[in-house]
Amino acid sequence: MQNPSPVPASLLTDAQQAEIADARAASASTRRATAPGLEALLFQAIPVLDKGFVRVVDYMGDDNAVVQGARVSYGRGTRAVQSDRGLIRYLMRHRHTTPFELAEIKLHVRAPIFVTRQWFRHRTASINEYSARYSVLEREFYVPPPESVAAQSASNRQGRGAAMAPEQAARVVEMLRDDAARCYDNYLWMLNEAEGEAHDPGRAGVARELARINLPVGIYTQFYWKVDLWNLLRFLSLRADPHAQAEIRAFADAILGVVQAWVPAVHDAFADYVMNATTLSGPAPALLRAALAGREPLDPAAFGLGGRELRELVETVPELAGRIQAAASPDLA
Amino acid sequence: MQNPSPVPASLLTDAQQAEIADARAASASTRRATAPGLEALLFQAIPVLDKGFVRVVDYMGDDNAVVQGARVSYGRGTRAVQSDRGLIRYLMRHRHTTPFELAEIKLHVRAPIFVTRQWFRHRTASINEYSARYSVLEREFYVPPPESVAAQSASNRQGRGAAMAPEQAARVVEMLRDDAARCYDNYLWMLNEAEGEAHDPGRAGVARELARINLPVGIYTQFYWKVDLWNLLRFLSLRADPHAQAEIRAFADAILGVVQAWVPAVHDAFADYVMNATTLSGPAPALLRAALAGREPLDPAAFGLGGRELRELVETVPELAGRIQAAASPDLA
Amino acid sequence: MQNPSPVPASLLTDAQQAEIADARAASASTRRATAPGLEALLFQAIPVLDKGFVRVVDYMGDDNAVVQGARVSYGRGTRAVQSDRGLIRYLMRHRHTTPFELAEIKLHVRAPIFVTRQWFRHRTASINEYSARYSVLEREFYVPPPESVAAQSASNRQGRGAAMAPEQAARVVEMLRDDAARCYDNYLWMLNEAEGEAHDPGRAGVARELARINLPVGIYTQFYWKVDLWNLLRFLSLRADPHAQAEIRAFADAILGVVQAWVPAVHDAFADYVMNATTLSGPAPALLRAALAGREPLDPAAFGLGGRELRELVETVPELAGRIQAAASPDLA
Amino acid sequence: MQNPSPVPASLLTDAQQAEIADARAASASTRRATAPGLEALLFQAIPVLDKGFVRVVDYMGDDNAVVQGARVSYGRGTRAVQSDRGLIRYLMRHRHTTPFELAEIKLHVRAPIFVTRQWFRHRTASINEYSARYSVLEREFYVPPPESVAAQSASNRQGRGAAMAPEQAARVVEMLRDDAARCYDNYLWMLNEAEGEAHDPGRAGVARELARINLPVGIYTQFYWKVDLWNLLRFLSLRADPHAQAEIRAFADAILGVVQAWVPAVHDAFADYVMNATTLSGPAPALLRAALAGREPLDPAAFGLGGRELRELVETVPELAGRIQAAASPDLA
Repeated sequence: MQNPSPVPASLLTDAQQAEIADARAASASTRRATAPGLEALLFQAIPVLDKGFVRVVDYMGDDNAVVQGARVSYGRGTRAVQSDRGLIRYLMRHRHTTPFELAEIKLHVRAPIFVTRQWFRHRTASINEYSARYSVLEREFYVPPPESVAAQSASNRQGRGAAMAPEQAARVVEMLRDDAARCYDNYLWMLNEAEGEAHDPGRAGVARELARINLPVGIYTQFYWKVDLWNLLRFLSLRADPHAQAEIRAFADAILGVVQAWVPAVHDAFADYVMNATTLSGPAPALLRAALAGREPLDPAAFGLGGRELRELVETVPELAGRIQAAASPDLA
Repeated sequence: MQNPSPVPASLLTDAQQAEIADARAASASTRRATAPGLEALLFQAIPVLDKGFVRVVDYMGDDNAVVQGARVSYGRGTRAVQSDRGLIRYLMRHRHTTPFELAEIKLHVRAPIFVTRQWFRHRTASINEYSARYSVLEREFYVPPPESVAAQSASNRQGRGAAMAPEQAARVVEMLRDDAARCYDNYLWMLNEAEGEAHDPGRAGVARELARINLPVGIYTQFYWKVDLWNLLRFLSLRADPHAQAEIRAFADAILGVVQAWVPAVHDAFADYVMNATTLSGPAPALLRAALAGREPLDPAAFGLGGRELRELVETVPELAGRIQAAASPDLA
Repeated sequence: MQNPSPVPASLLTDAQQAEIADARAASASTRRATAPGLEALLFQAIPVLDKGFVRVVDYMGDDNAVVQGARVSYGRGTRAVQSDRGLIRYLMRHRHTTPFELAEIKLHVRAPIFVTRQWFRHRTASINEYSARYSVLEREFYVPPPESVAAQSASNRQGRGAAMAPEQAARVVEMLRDDAARCYDNYLWMLNEAEGEAHDPGRAGVARELARINLPVGIYTQFYWKVDLWNLLRFLSLRADPHAQAEIRAFADAILGVVQAWVPAVHDAFADYVMNATTLSGPAPALLRAALAGREPLDPAAFGLGGRELRELVETVPELAGRIQAAASPDLA
Repeated sequence: MQNPSPVPASLLTDAQQAEIADARAASASTRRATAPGLEALLFQAIPVLDKGFVRVVDYMGDDNAVVQGARVSYGRGTRAVQSDRGLIRYLMRHRHTTPFELAEIKLHVRAPIFVTRQWFRHRTASINEYSARYSVLEREFYVPPPESVAAQSASNRQGRGAAMAPEQAARVVEMLRDDAARCYDNYLWMLNEAEGEAHDPGRAGVARELARINLPVGIYTQFYWKVDLWNLLRFLSLRADPHAQAEIRAFADAILGVVQAWVPAVHDAFADYVMNATTLSGPAPALLRAALAGREPLDPAAFGLGGRELRELVETVPELAGRIQAAASPDLA
């Protein structure tokens, strides 16, 4: 992983930075497996979006934990580096998932509420979130940079299309910022507290759990997230994907860098066999074989292929397009 | 369960009511176990809060499914009603949880986002939520009735204390309503669509996934929720509890009524042995025994009891208060 | 699904058959979705292996439950059959898994212990198993038919190779049967009970939980298994696979028939996009494209392909073999 | 925890002992939290039963991880030791379970198959077990010591009663040993392999997955087990309980010692508020209060108490017995 971008001064308070520096300064001796690439990153805030971050706060295991688990071994469980790497790739290619569950990581994340709502749909993880019933939320909202403000996609009903004209984007950004600011001001007014004291002693403060209900889903919250390596990879395969919303994808991309620093052999196998893999539906190989055997023009319907499924296949192997009979061309339009 | 309150006219559109009526009118023959109390409720919206609801959309099993599973039986698995009821109570008292997993229910719920954020922390359930990336959210916000607007509790850092003065409560309600209305107006302006057409053809509409980030957590969303009976009872034991936020508790109370209609024997055992049960910590029975044996004044410290733990015990059995030696009284203040 | 094979007379006792017949005879009216293909099968024992079976004892939902959940609908949620089917295929192809969790099934299974040990590794399911601490196990062991007795595979370290010579196979079968019989006789001797009475009043019977520890893993046990449709398909994708042990595969094949009777559209999408799908690793499409573009001889290493990964690709598309340069042939041997 | 008993010479091979010694000798520097009590135990085999063991092979977090998670903190998250301990006790008493999920442990266990069948019913854990399809099982069987051989309990249908007469116990032990030995000899004969070579070159060896089906459930297997602290405590609350079978309880007791060495504050809170806690059903406190108020004779039925539930209450607080009216005495017999 490249060095994470420097932490903007505004991301953390001085007290928070001091706490992190203290934690990084401490060191102890352990008999456990350590991952040097992750030790270097430990506790540091990796910036994501305008005010979010990901921090690794603990981890268990390394590439070798996967090998050791697959072999149910008494010692380190490793043999030659080459054969360990080969075993990891074999396990990944054949979706032998349980050894990948034997490594674990714990992150501290600051993210907007609408991002956490997508994040927490992944159920196989442990979560402790900052409580807005118990504590006052900070004045931190996600405001997209103007170049991220895009129109609704025409082709993909749940995504973004073209970027908007700069002056229109600026207006949207301003509107989002104003709404958030006004709601937060009203939140503070309702709470009526300043450092433990009532701001206006003439009235009671509203309970926190109630005053927060007008805060926008763009407000930042924070949480501890602990997950095993396999379920982390599952999360990344869905959230580092082009179909994911750009904002959660920014977090997933940052975490992909963490995975690379932590378990490089697993990271590479995951990239080759999951992230960049292509799944062909049942009839597709037969069509490919016929094309390679020189039979043409090919009739996709004779292979049980058509519609969106055929279009996706031709996107993967564009050389097929010219060999398919004209009658199927509407499917490819 | 008493009849659910009549559905306010504004809760559902005419089209939705017609869909529900159609679903209720259909009927089929089945060899499966049926729960008559739940068939009567099926598909109907049970109103919760100002614009929320819970609807049972499907279920599997009844009281007898628990008995049948515990006995791994070939047929209905039941014997005398009395002995079935006794078995259910025994299983509940001793936390033999797996037979309770053998019944299942599916609900359709409309609830504010801040409620769903508490709800979805329960991980052993299946969820399909309305997508604000794909669709436009409705103009429905939770606005608490003035009598629910309460001050922050002094004794309980995460709860509500006394109700606020009426004019102050009214001002809070108005503030929440205004913030929500303004944010929603701006959301619509950004979307720039009305029934599929651009409202203002001179500019592009912002992508839905982005335009929604200024919407407050008080906005209503809806989801399908499918859960087994045991995990439903777990949810209820935490969310129908006085420590839960009033708004999610309103949903839990409505669902308790559903459970009573569905599996009455399980409901009663759950009430006696979980909801209304009391847990005594290790040393407490010895103190109770000493009190019944007439030894006094009692020294709680000699039993390893003190602080908040002692106070909770005396709240459960107030007759102990007068028998505890004066030295321990600060703990009870 | 074809009609299940007739139940052998010895599979169930008369009392069990009567219980099943009673359950099948009962019928009730329901507002819930029903799956006619599954109603026809309900409660019947589908024979598997020599003395095992699978019985559907309850279910929730049908093909339409998937559609209804994906649309978070108020009514049946369906439109034209054609568009529902298309939505199911889209969801399956893109692994939108949550709507498939909204249907549920409950099975009663009798299977050998070594099969259940593989079965119960699937954690997202509810299980109630017959207790060998509480009850006496039946005298039923799995004994493979002679034609299933195979040698250890030379190429696949965890599978079977060629069938053995008939007289050797017969000897193995006899050995397995004798071991099981002797162990079971000794189990009964230790229990020293016959229909509740001590067989030999001169000595105490050993506790059931202890007497059973010499019983072989080939003995049959039985259990209730409740699982959602998505996790059932996951189970089938691993256990109806050629790499699974033949004995659990026999159960998976029987359950595939149940899925086809229950949710035919989901079954077909699963067959096309999961069971019969092929996954190409990251570099494979580039090699295929080069082959279709007529570039040859191809150097797999230049595409980052080699070893077992290359061999698996050539097994899928044998037409590639002749176009790959000779230097890579050791990988294909 | 007291020092674990010395490892019997026969428990591990020399090669295994050397692997463990190597792993213990390695040491690295880490920024992560370390638990000194657990570092001391790391990798060592703690003997359980005759040939089983538990080895801690990795861990993440300590008492403080619970505190840090509950506070979603930037640094170590701790304050005074006293207040941290108080927070842990509060969280345990009120079943705020999520912070306890933030610590994790990984064990290597050797246990009989019948024990693993109870163990793996706990679904929230990661497991990698030695494969009897891929490898040859070792000649290691659980044989209970004669003093553990007990008769079936008369009062508890799933437990052991009185110990058996020595000569009867000895006969049972011999029978179990003989059955296991004979089955294992036949297993080896069927495998027909000795250190990779066919023993008898005149016949094929049976596939491992098939040859093992006559092995008894008392044979030892081994597995890696990774679990979070909360789910580990759940496991212990059920398996270190007097109702659990003695053999799995021996493993649970060993693991309780590990928990004490790892997270002493959590261990103590768990002992006080879970292991040694008593749950009173809904009506019980009212009866206790009436007894303390001196009202007698008490009529349990008037409080809604009777049967087994009443008997369990009187077992907890025997002083109640003399104050209950004679009419209720059959329930107490």
